[in-house]
Amino acid sequence: MILHDYLPSGNGYKVRLLLNRLEQPYDYRHYDIVQGATRTPEFRRMNPAGKIPVLELDDGRFLSESNAILFYLSQGTDYWPQSRWEQAQVLKWMNFEQYSHEPNIAAPRFWLTHLGLNEERRTQLAGKQAQGRAALAVMEDRLAEHDWFVADRCTIADIALYAYTHVADEGGFEMNDYPNIGRWMHRFATQPNHSVITDE
Amino acid sequence: MILHDYLPSGNGYKVRLLLNRLEQPYDYRHYDIVQGATRTPEFRRMNPAGKIPVLELDDGRFLSESNAILFYLSQGTDYWPQSRWEQAQVLKWMNFEQYSHEPNIAAPRFWLTHLGLNEERRTQLAGKQAQGRAALAVMEDRLAEHDWFVADRCTIADIALYAYTHVADEGGFEMNDYPNIGRWMHRFATQPNHSVITDE
Repeated sequence: MILHDYLPSGNGYKVRLLLNRLEQPYDYRHYDIVQGATRTPEFRRMNPAGKIPVLELDDGRFLSESNAILFYLSQGTDYWPQSRWEQAQVLKWMNFEQYSHEPNIAAPRFWLTHLGLNEERRTQLAGKQAQGRAALAVMEDRLAEHDWFVADRCTIADIALYAYTHVADEGGFEMNDYPNIGRWMHRFATQPNHSVITDE
Repeated sequence: MILHDYLPSGNGYKVRLLLNRLEQPYDYRHYDIVQGATRTPEFRRMNPAGKIPVLELDDGRFLSESNAILFYLSQGTDYWPQSRWEQAQVLKWMNFEQYSHEPNIAAPRFWLTHLGLNEERRTQLAGKQAQGRAALAVMEDRLAEHDWFVADRCTIADIALYAYTHVADEGGFEMNDYPNIGRWMHRFATQPNHSVITDE
């Protein structure tokens, strides 16, 4: 398999992390999204939406959207639970991640570490950070009485949420305010095969 | 089952539509999100994120996030395909909907039809609409050679995408620019059990 990706991306990180945990070898292709490398006709043949990550299967098919890739790779493994209710809970947290968490945590981080603040970003920063704190509070609440987001073990919901949470401090979030999240991140990072290629 | 919802919501519409297509009876509870009805402690016991829709099962369990609810209800029906690859494609389109489509189409519609434009919304409107047109172009491209988003029949990916697309004109989108989407919407709306309660 080939992963088409951008190294600083948390969405790419999710996929790299699961591939590593599953001890699944893959080739890596890097695209500089800031320089428009995903907006070319060649890239759009893999993903018309022009976004990384894209997983290229051995038979040449392409799968985009990080959480769909996590779903695909996790089938038949412990990272995807067996009951319909728990599966729905995994997707609940992954949709929460894409809609309420990622846009408000990844964007401030990307602005502060890569793009810098122009007038428009400066206007939006405080609002994004407030919504990001609200998302972290929802996670903190869940983790008060549970070790993991679904069931009693690490699933792709944890992988999806870990990706941007573990670098949220770079987006201006005060992570000491979320002790349950801190313990969950430690639990997560001390599982086997945790290391993953990043730009960190 | 009880659906906790807000009638103008496209995310709620998705769930109402699938319940109707599956001929699944349910009770309905309406919450005025503009008046803060989902921010109460009582509502947050159902969904700590404070968002509709929430599906309450007969045994009292609560499921939030519209696309997770669609997944749960579709299991064992034709709306969820059987192969791992097609399932991943369904989730790909549903993640595209939540990340690239809904935020850029639902927000302009909500601003123009319900909230009105203040200074901040006015600043963001053109950018949102440009990204919304990009999302519609990706859909238009897919539908050039396919009747449905995944496989050869209507799945929950179509239901998720239909919800805000069929009212995108209210967000200032010129839908005559997307003839393939127009034909798909007609195909979709002429299937059995299409009617659904809305505020339209």
